[in-house]
Amino acid sequence: MPHEIERKFLLKTVPADLANYPHYHIEQGYLMATPDGQQVRLRRTDSGCTLTFKTEEGAVREEREIEITADQFGALWPATTGKRLTKTRHKVPFGNLTIEVDIYEGTHCGLTVAEVEFPDRGACRNFQPPDWFGEEVTNNPRYSNVVLARE
Amino acid sequence: MPHEIERKFLLKTVPADLANYPHYHIEQGYLMATPDGQQVRLRRTDSGCTLTFKTEEGAVREEREIEITADQFGALWPATTGKRLTKTRHKVPFGNLTIEVDIYEGTHCGLTVAEVEFPDRGACRNFQPPDWFGEEVTNNPRYSNVVLARE
Repeated sequence: MPHEIERKFLLKTVPADLANYPHYHIEQGYLMATPDGQQVRLRRTDSGCTLTFKTEEGAVREEREIEITADQFGALWPATTGKRLTKTRHKVPFGNLTIEVDIYEGTHCGLTVAEVEFPDRGACRNFQPPDWFGEEVTNNPRYSNVVLARE
Repeated sequence: MPHEIERKFLLKTVPADLANYPHYHIEQGYLMATPDGQQVRLRRTDSGCTLTFKTEEGAVREEREIEITADQFGALWPATTGKRLTKTRHKVPFGNLTIEVDIYEGTHCGLTVAEVEFPDRGACRNFQPPDWFGEEVTNNPRYSNVVLARE
């Protein structure tokens, strides 16, 4: 199965030129999500819709994602009521990595979170956060999207 | 949300002419399933593939289903390993109802189960099972497909 290795941080500030980086609006909701980190997620952005199955243990995830049509999305989306969130994602280059800066909206307006995905465990371990990063929350369920979506 | 009202029975015998009724082969597996009856199910039959979200409390279910392509199915199916079952479903007319007779294969070879779906709660309550029906297992988790699929 495909793996994701990533770390997540709260942000003290965001780059002043954040809006100049590629960014897009994300609506996502969960058909199902369990406390052990399994989830089936629906997501809609400007570029299309996806359905994603994830299992998760700490920084290592397994993930399977398919593109779905707007009709398929529309038929399933009502089942995510009460388990949704919206945010704008910015892609900020950082050396050979990409920092994803998520600006949350709605209930979580004001929350800003960065996720960094790594090619391997070594790069994950050795990552030096820039000074605009705050507390690391990789293993803090308080900031999991599933928990945020239920609030 | 669409509702299903149905009852489930073990069978003492099956009609001698069962193979003459419309029937088709079903492979199904679960991306996720929780003990409280929520599930995301993948199913493949001769006529195509589906992805279904269900919540369930006793005889009353809520259900949302989409058709998916063979490629979409193929991308998600590996995540159902260890949570699959196969059976042949026969559609047997019974008055204004249809009895679905499922003949299980593989691990559950020999198990035969009938499901009857009703247009309303009154029809559900008043249903008189034919004499080839055995024990009712509508609320018996032992015979839920999710439980069978994990064995």
